[in-house]
Amino acid sequence: MIVDNAVYVDGLRTEPPSLEETCETVRDRGGFAWIGLYRPTEDELGAVAKEFGLPPLAVEDALSGHQRAKVEKYGSMLFVVLRPAEYVDETEKVEFGEVHLFLGDDFVITVRHFDSPDLARVRRRLEGDPALLRHGPVAALYGVLDEIVDEYAPVVAGLEDDIDEIEDQLFSGDRGVSRRIFELSTEVMHFQRAVDPLRDVMGSLRQGLLARQEDEDLRDAFRDVEDHVIRVTERADGFRQILQNALTVHTALVGQQQNDEVKKISGWAAILFTPTLVGTVYGMNFRIMPELHWAFGYPYALLLMLAMGVGLYVIFKRKHWI
Amino acid sequence: MIVDNAVYVDGLRTEPPSLEETCETVRDRGGFAWIGLYRPTEDELGAVAKEFGLPPLAVEDALSGHQRAKVEKYGSMLFVVLRPAEYVDETEKVEFGEVHLFLGDDFVITVRHFDSPDLARVRRRLEGDPALLRHGPVAALYGVLDEIVDEYAPVVAGLEDDIDEIEDQLFSGDRGVSRRIFELSTEVMHFQRAVDPLRDVMGSLRQGLLARQEDEDLRDAFRDVEDHVIRVTERADGFRQILQNALTVHTALVGQQQNDEVKKISGWAAILFTPTLVGTVYGMNFRIMPELHWAFGYPYALLLMLAMGVGLYVIFKRKHWI
Amino acid sequence: MIVDNAVYVDGLRTEPPSLEETCETVRDRGGFAWIGLYRPTEDELGAVAKEFGLPPLAVEDALSGHQRAKVEKYGSMLFVVLRPAEYVDETEKVEFGEVHLFLGDDFVITVRHFDSPDLARVRRRLEGDPALLRHGPVAALYGVLDEIVDEYAPVVAGLEDDIDEIEDQLFSGDRGVSRRIFELSTEVMHFQRAVDPLRDVMGSLRQGLLARQEDEDLRDAFRDVEDHVIRVTERADGFRQILQNALTVHTALVGQQQNDEVKKISGWAAILFTPTLVGTVYGMNFRIMPELHWAFGYPYALLLMLAMGVGLYVIFKRKHWI
Amino acid sequence: MIVDNAVYVDGLRTEPPSLEETCETVRDRGGFAWIGLYRPTEDELGAVAKEFGLPPLAVEDALSGHQRAKVEKYGSMLFVVLRPAEYVDETEKVEFGEVHLFLGDDFVITVRHFDSPDLARVRRRLEGDPALLRHGPVAALYGVLDEIVDEYAPVVAGLEDDIDEIEDQLFSGDRGVSRRIFELSTEVMHFQRAVDPLRDVMGSLRQGLLARQEDEDLRDAFRDVEDHVIRVTERADGFRQILQNALTVHTALVGQQQNDEVKKISGWAAILFTPTLVGTVYGMNFRIMPELHWAFGYPYALLLMLAMGVGLYVIFKRKHWI
Amino acid sequence: MIVDNAVYVDGLRTEPPSLEETCETVRDRGGFAWIGLYRPTEDELGAVAKEFGLPPLAVEDALSGHQRAKVEKYGSMLFVVLRPAEYVDETEKVEFGEVHLFLGDDFVITVRHFDSPDLARVRRRLEGDPALLRHGPVAALYGVLDEIVDEYAPVVAGLEDDIDEIEDQLFSGDRGVSRRIFELSTEVMHFQRAVDPLRDVMGSLRQGLLARQEDEDLRDAFRDVEDHVIRVTERADGFRQILQNALTVHTALVGQQQNDEVKKISGWAAILFTPTLVGTVYGMNFRIMPELHWAFGYPYALLLMLAMGVGLYVIFKRKHWI
Repeated sequence: MIVDNAVYVDGLRTEPPSLEETCETVRDRGGFAWIGLYRPTEDELGAVAKEFGLPPLAVEDALSGHQRAKVEKYGSMLFVVLRPAEYVDETEKVEFGEVHLFLGDDFVITVRHFDSPDLARVRRRLEGDPALLRHGPVAALYGVLDEIVDEYAPVVAGLEDDIDEIEDQLFSGDRGVSRRIFELSTEVMHFQRAVDPLRDVMGSLRQGLLARQEDEDLRDAFRDVEDHVIRVTERADGFRQILQNALTVHTALVGQQQNDEVKKISGWAAILFTPTLVGTVYGMNFRIMPELHWAFGYPYALLLMLAMGVGLYVIFKRKHWI
Repeated sequence: MIVDNAVYVDGLRTEPPSLEETCETVRDRGGFAWIGLYRPTEDELGAVAKEFGLPPLAVEDALSGHQRAKVEKYGSMLFVVLRPAEYVDETEKVEFGEVHLFLGDDFVITVRHFDSPDLARVRRRLEGDPALLRHGPVAALYGVLDEIVDEYAPVVAGLEDDIDEIEDQLFSGDRGVSRRIFELSTEVMHFQRAVDPLRDVMGSLRQGLLARQEDEDLRDAFRDVEDHVIRVTERADGFRQILQNALTVHTALVGQQQNDEVKKISGWAAILFTPTLVGTVYGMNFRIMPELHWAFGYPYALLLMLAMGVGLYVIFKRKHWI
Repeated sequence: MIVDNAVYVDGLRTEPPSLEETCETVRDRGGFAWIGLYRPTEDELGAVAKEFGLPPLAVEDALSGHQRAKVEKYGSMLFVVLRPAEYVDETEKVEFGEVHLFLGDDFVITVRHFDSPDLARVRRRLEGDPALLRHGPVAALYGVLDEIVDEYAPVVAGLEDDIDEIEDQLFSGDRGVSRRIFELSTEVMHFQRAVDPLRDVMGSLRQGLLARQEDEDLRDAFRDVEDHVIRVTERADGFRQILQNALTVHTALVGQQQNDEVKKISGWAAILFTPTLVGTVYGMNFRIMPELHWAFGYPYALLLMLAMGVGLYVIFKRKHWI
Repeated sequence: MIVDNAVYVDGLRTEPPSLEETCETVRDRGGFAWIGLYRPTEDELGAVAKEFGLPPLAVEDALSGHQRAKVEKYGSMLFVVLRPAEYVDETEKVEFGEVHLFLGDDFVITVRHFDSPDLARVRRRLEGDPALLRHGPVAALYGVLDEIVDEYAPVVAGLEDDIDEIEDQLFSGDRGVSRRIFELSTEVMHFQRAVDPLRDVMGSLRQGLLARQEDEDLRDAFRDVEDHVIRVTERADGFRQILQNALTVHTALVGQQQNDEVKKISGWAAILFTPTLVGTVYGMNFRIMPELHWAFGYPYALLLMLAMGVGLYVIFKRKHWI
Repeated sequence: MIVDNAVYVDGLRTEPPSLEETCETVRDRGGFAWIGLYRPTEDELGAVAKEFGLPPLAVEDALSGHQRAKVEKYGSMLFVVLRPAEYVDETEKVEFGEVHLFLGDDFVITVRHFDSPDLARVRRRLEGDPALLRHGPVAALYGVLDEIVDEYAPVVAGLEDDIDEIEDQLFSGDRGVSRRIFELSTEVMHFQRAVDPLRDVMGSLRQGLLARQEDEDLRDAFRDVEDHVIRVTERADGFRQILQNALTVHTALVGQQQNDEVKKISGWAAILFTPTLVGTVYGMNFRIMPELHWAFGYPYALLLMLAMGVGLYVIFKRKHWI
């Protein structure tokens, strides 16, 4: 579906009635066109591709999806793949989207397959800054990049929350922690796979597209995004390390816990068993056993049993065995 | 065995009757020859090598096999080794083949030692695209590369299925999971060894063969294949990491399971043992033990035993020990 | 808050009454201005930014904080982010601050969000060395860098103390050691994340700012700071390795401890149980059992029990089981 | 000991009677000398060194041994150290030799300290290929390199056999497997240390010696050797990874085995203990216990004991506990 | 303390009476001065620094110590820090010293803070080789480097001995082995930290100082030292790997040992417990129990007990449980 189709001349928006007239408008009045597509069918994307002469291999990539973040040069056109991410709190999963951009000299086409990121908002924000839009398609690229990278922040925060919870779980002996560490590690790995290639993307934009750009402000803006990307990747790598350590610590703690339980169990076993010793003694059949003839022999034996049990209980309690 | 022998002039197929006439045809009418060999004997390959002046060291490699993916320049000829892979679901193994290509200015010779990949299909596909075939031997190289790299997708999918199953097994306490992780790790490692060198192959083709190529479409097509290769290697590396984590988690889980079983066993031991305590008490020989003279002393004792056993059972059940 | 505002002409301090006159003074008399800000409000930093034409993106970074150590070039201006650290002994945590510097041709603006480092002291020290101050804003940068890097030394010392304590705890069987290793590893990781980027910062200062500097002494001074930074990062990496090893050793020790306890417990179980064997024997109901009729049969049995218990105790003690 | 001393003119062998005449022959008739030394004494090597003007530091290295594989340029001379390896099946050890080559413009001196590799065979093979020998000393270098690298193949095969055996041992619960993994890891590490530097050696030969070589065949031949070296190093690295994984899996398996044994032992304990419960019941002294007066009370009790034991045995057997 | 002060003209030693005259001698007669300092006070080093115009930052480093191995260029002067090491067998520790060298065009100043290395011996050795000394200060640098690097050999040997002992300990079940591995790992890490930067030092000497050197012998001599350094670092890295593996193996062995002990203990428990079963049977109070009335019933029961104990003992012994 074509969700938006506008031409920006000197940073100001005009809306041509159809795709064909979009190109004419640009040819006649200068500026650049920005077509926004949402889950386009093969035909829709094909029509746009034909109109703007998009490279077939890139169009195929945009249709099939499952690309990694990358930037590819086709003649004077650029094809950029970005991977927005969203943290879903209920499932503790990170969900990944995919955004494709085709950048020509006088057009930009954005293809979105998932709800997020909200590219309409990006467009509105840029439309409020004509000075920026005047830079042409590269301004749209900046807007989308900035939005997507900003959206990584809540993902990082969500992962960090989970890791904080895991640290607490770890030392409280929670049994489910190994599963949680394992699953979160996998999430972090997927997040790293989405974000890490973006460093290369930013780097090659810097050396390619932006090196030709005369405006320094725009270069600074892209550098700011790159700086964000680096921070996100470093945080993600830190998460990976903490989770790795947590796993090793967890193994040690399971062993420690086992030591505690073996102690506790054998303590109780001793408490239970010692009275038996008394019973066995007075169950012997020696002819001469004075206690057996005492009037209070039986209560005495019972008390002795109890005393031994309680005595051991106190000793073990003091030693923190039980 | 020579399975196919054709000359492509201007992208169109002609079939010379013999190997000797193949060369003549190329010399007379231009275009390039494409000889397809399947498990050639030393003599068969020798005949082809003599006809086309193939480099002896490369021929030796093609005969002995067990090469890694590589590209080697011999004068104006290229020798390319590729390693197709196939996932065998029953054994959960990845099987590797080997394809060798000799690329000259006006010929390409493909040597195949295994059933897959289906090079006849590659040839048919290319024959259906004369514009592509017009680029000469490099088009054949592209076709074979594209086929082999596409065939990695089901391998990746198969490995991913296994890993998903392993994740489930891991937390269900399946005993065989350590062996499965170990064996799958080895498969993933072999797969990485087959695929990782392909990144270098694609890189050196890009810088060598393709840098001379004027046609941009062909360069884009190779870049598309390279992009696939990168994605496959990244996935494989992700598998390696997940399996590594799974192994560590498994160790922790084995410890946890042990804790559970020690608890369960000692719980049952206590349930069995406590009645003995009663029996030992009433087995004592004190002269004065009122219960012994009760009419229902014996049933009382039995009930007491039962009550203690059941009581412990309930307590342990509530504590989730047994 | 603007905590200091001075102009240094030929290395000597003069204090203009207001921000506006600061710029005038510099314009009239040469030298450079050094404005010191402490937790500035948006308005305060905005006023300074307007006066000196600071780049908006850098100003935004300085306001929002949470930056990594970096140096960024904006035209002829430099924006430098540094991350001072402080070791808090009670909590065994490392706390991180953030200092931002804007370096222009004739001004330097330092923004501080935390109590440490004491930039007033840095300023006083530099004011005592007019020869150094004569180099202009770069001298202020040197002073701040030197102070911050020197302040890493007590952090390294504090971490090292903790690690020494952990080594002792490790082999004394202290149960809390796994938690401490885990938490200290996280601290070390955070410290590495603060310090490691500083190597790049120093490197790019060396290649950028300092390559233009003619004065060799200043270059040597920066190299000295860089050398300190390298040593700090190497120490931190060493800590990481030791803690990693300590964790692995700890896992092995927990297992060893378990072996010891199982031995100890089963030793005591044997000591307790063996007397029961005697009791069970003399509790048998055979008609002819001579011992039962002995005058001292009962004391003999008790002694036998005791002897067996003591005998086992001695044996186990010698074997270091209990 | 000087084991061979020949001059090759135009690829054909002549044998000068003494060392001194060797040099004369070369000077008069061209070609190059090839001196083969086996465990030379200091004097023997000294005499050769003096005759050919070998660099003293290289001579010292050749005498003392324990070098790593390397290539060093001394003026127009090359000093090459190679490390042949041999797999000893009985001890499962890899044994390493050392071969030194001095390459001048018109001579090559090979020094061998161990029985393998058989340099006489290398020489005979080269003598059978005068075209190759005509390239001069570099042909001898190629011959030795080729032999040594070919000799790595049985080492790799031997290590692989051991690893296959270890995989089997691992899952059959063999106790000695941890020692074997440890020792084989050490062997693999030593092998890597011998082979890995050879990649650099081949690389610097390619960029140094061979860049000057006009003959393409020789360059291809060296590339072929380099390709072998790369494959060997990749295999060795794969071994390292598999052994690493095997060690981790082994730790998990030891834990699993422990779980099994604890279950088995406690199962048998329950089988032994339950009859005691019956005995304890009928050992109570209640006045009224009907069973005690039954004619077949005793056999009934014995049967009850047996039934309980057998019952538990069957239950545990079904649960695969014992 | 100034321990030696000499001027070498044309490789021959002359001894000026005082520091001041040293400089004069060099000015008048050429050659270079070599001042040897041992634990200099601030004043002593200050006097030398003033006389030779040493850079203040380097002098500060030399006074405070705790530097890493490095080489720094100050104008035409070089400041070199080296870290000699010594293995102390009793404590199994490696002790590290520090040597500082100031190299000018016509002087070298060596500062030593520890007993080793014996720089007097270095000086004597060089004085015996005037041809070498004629190269000036760089000859002294070579001498000191060579000595320090040679002194690493016994350290490597000492560490290797310890590792061999640890391998033996590991499989003999020695309990102290985990501590020893941990401590030796730390030693190896410190050794690596001392030696690894030396590779960079040698590299930058090669590219800086030595690139200007015309004499090839001297370059070869430095390369020889660099080669030693590389071998030492590789050995140290090998140690690190072996110790890492030993730690993992140790964890597996502790688990295996536990399995053995649990078996042993439960074996003995069964041997002790089975006789109780007999006693319990004959302690039952059934009216009709024929054995109780046998004349030899009691000895029969005792024999039965013994037989069962011995029987189990034999069975367990055969199964290698006890």
